[in-house]
Formats: sequence, C-alpha cells, structure tokens
Amino acid sequence: MPLAPWRSLISRALHRNRSLVYARYLQLATVKQNGRPANRTVVFRGFWQETNKLKIITDSRSQKFTEIQEQPWGEICWYFPKTREQFRLTGEITLVNSNNNNNDLQNARHSTWQEISDNARIQFAWAHPGEKRANLEAFSPPLPDGIVPLDNFCLLLFEPVEVDHLELKGEPQNRWLYTKNELGNWETLEVNP
Amino acid sequence: MPLAPWRSLISRALHRNRSLVYARYLQLATVKQNGRPANRTVVFRGFWQETNKLKIITDSRSQKFTEIQEQPWGEICWYFPKTREQFRLTGEITLVNSNNNNNDLQNARHSTWQEISDNARIQFAWAHPGEKRANLEAFSPPLPDGIVPLDNFCLLLFEPVEVDHLELKGEPQNRWLYTKNELGNWETLEVNP
Repeated sequence: MPLAPWRSLISRALHRNRSLVYARYLQLATVKQNGRPANRTVVFRGFWQETNKLKIITDSRSQKFTEIQEQPWGEICWYFPKTREQFRLTGEITLVNSNNNNNDLQNARHSTWQEISDNARIQFAWAHPGEKRANLEAFSPPLPDGIVPLDNFCLLLFEPVEVDHLELKGEPQNRWLYTKNELGNWETLEVNP
Repeated sequence: MPLAPWRSLISRALHRNRSLVYARYLQLATVKQNGRPANRTVVFRGFWQETNKLKIITDSRSQKFTEIQEQPWGEICWYFPKTREQFRLTGEITLVNSNNNNNDLQNARHSTWQEISDNARIQFAWAHPGEKRANLEAFSPPLPDGIVPLDNFCLLLFEPVEVDHLELKGEPQNRWLYTKNELGNWETLEVNP
C-alpha cells in the first residue's frame, strides 16, 4: 500500500509543532447508538508500520468502544496551533481488543501496550471510567505487566478515506481535499477555504 | 433561566488560558446525512446574553449548515492546553439564518455580525467554500457592510444538556458530569476519569 500524500504533511506538522506536547492530541468524533455525535480528545500514538492507519488507544470499558462497535466510521479533527493548520480525516476504525484473532493486529496491540508509559498503562487498571467516583484505593492498583496488555486495553486503527487540509496562514487560506478513489489511489483537489 | 454550574468553569478556563489565541477554538461534531460523524474546529463567540447557549458562526453554504438542519444534535470537545482540562458538551443547535422570523434570534444574528472583525466578515463574501479553488479575484470582494449581515451569514446557538469536565492535572485525574434533568435543573456527579 503506497503512503498517502497527506501522511508526510501530518509528519511535517508534528515535527514543526513538536515543542507543544498537545500537538499530539486530536479530537475523534463518532456516532452514538442514539444517532447523535460524540467527540473527545485522544492521543495520536503514531502510524501503524508503513500504512496510512493512525494508532489510538482506548479502554474497552469506555463508551467509545461500544459506539465504534456499532458504527465504525469516525472523523478526526486535528488542529496544529503553531503552524495554524487543521486536518480533518474521515475514516473507518478497526477495534483490536483482546479477543481479536488476527495475528498482525494482535501483535500491533501488544507492541502498542509495550510502547506506552507506565503512567498510561496503569490507567487501564483503575476503577471503571465514567462511573460514580470510587475511593482512592481504586486508583492505586499494582503496576500492570509491561509486556502483556490488560484485557480491557484496546487498540484503534483509524484508516482515512478522505482528508481535508486547511492552512489558516494563507491570504486567502489554503485548502486541499485528498480523496481515496475506487482503485485505492489518492486524488488531490485544491478547494476554496 | 439560571446559569449552569459549568458555565463559570468555562469562563475560568477561558481566563486562565487567555494568553493562547486558540483557547477559543473548539471542535464541533455533528452527524452527516449518511449517518457518519463530521468534526471541525470553530471559534467560540461568547455566550448568548445571560444564557447557557454558546455562539458559533457559520456560512449557510458550508456542509455543517445542511448537516445541522437534518440532525440538530452536536457535541463540542474543548481542550484547554494551559490548564490541561477538557469540556465535552452535548447539546442541541439552533440555526439562525437570514430567514429566521424570531426577533430575539434575528437580533442576536445581527449583533454577532457587528461584533466580528472585518477579516471575519469578508470571508462570507468569498467564493463558495469547499468548491474547486477559484481565482484570486473571487477572494477580493468589496468589504461587506458592518451593520447588516450578508444573507449567508448564520448564527448557531448551541444549548448543552450534558457537560463532561475532565481535569488532567489531578492524581488521579478529576472528572465531573453535569446533567440537565427533566425539571431543567443541573445535577452534578463526580465520576471516575
């Protein structure tokens, strides 16, 4: 699979905004079972190998896990403050939880678990997210194993089919639309901001 | 209508993050006609008078205008980098375009137009957003009148019914859920992050 033309633009934006920790934060929108949108900040965990798929992690106890099971389409909005540019990525999400039998995907889940910090890992051993606040003990579990992920650790692979790139800096602003066509090739169109 | 308990928290976050221009940028998710989510950065234009409704502006030629006409529910994700806190606001959107006959709403549309900068206003006179890039002349229109809005200028009023506030700073993080009950009162629940 050839790398998409927008992939290097994201790498460039990450590089130019690297002084800001939160340049790796993006907003992932999904659709709830009631047909209304959900939206939350997640951390970009890199691309999966030499593909165009973005890695995101989540807890299978979170609402977005259930939402994505029902409706796998998502839209990422990613604003880079320093370079003043926005990427909107429309794509389909593959959920990789502990039951996934695909070897490559399960390996990806394991290696992602190994790459994240102890601080990120321990959160998967905390009390059930979104429920009534538990006492402090529920947030002081033993440190989980660094090799084998906890069962509720879930990898999301987000595969874009359309990317809308807006640069606020231009006069007027610059905007390009990247669309994956039926043959799997990417087409580029410069559009009005 | 009493002010919601989360409203002063947002005001506080805006104040503490005021050194960052982009602290006023938030991500608004809606649902497209095909049932998939859309997500984009918009600018917070203040609360509408003494209500809990957030003001956002858009162009009636934009996709979100059509999307919101069909499905008025949205979810805002608003991350404040300096204080490291996130607000997720679930709510219903009222579209106020040039055809709206409600006097209060039409006045709000007019006063919002008057409050924004020339630079923001002129964009409503630019070539059709999202279409194939037009030549430079299409981006050099005469400056629109500062009093009467152009027809395609649209005000969105976003009225939250649920607000999820997460502070990343705590150890563990702090999270509260604010829900509007059937009587129109706000209930607060501290939940697990």
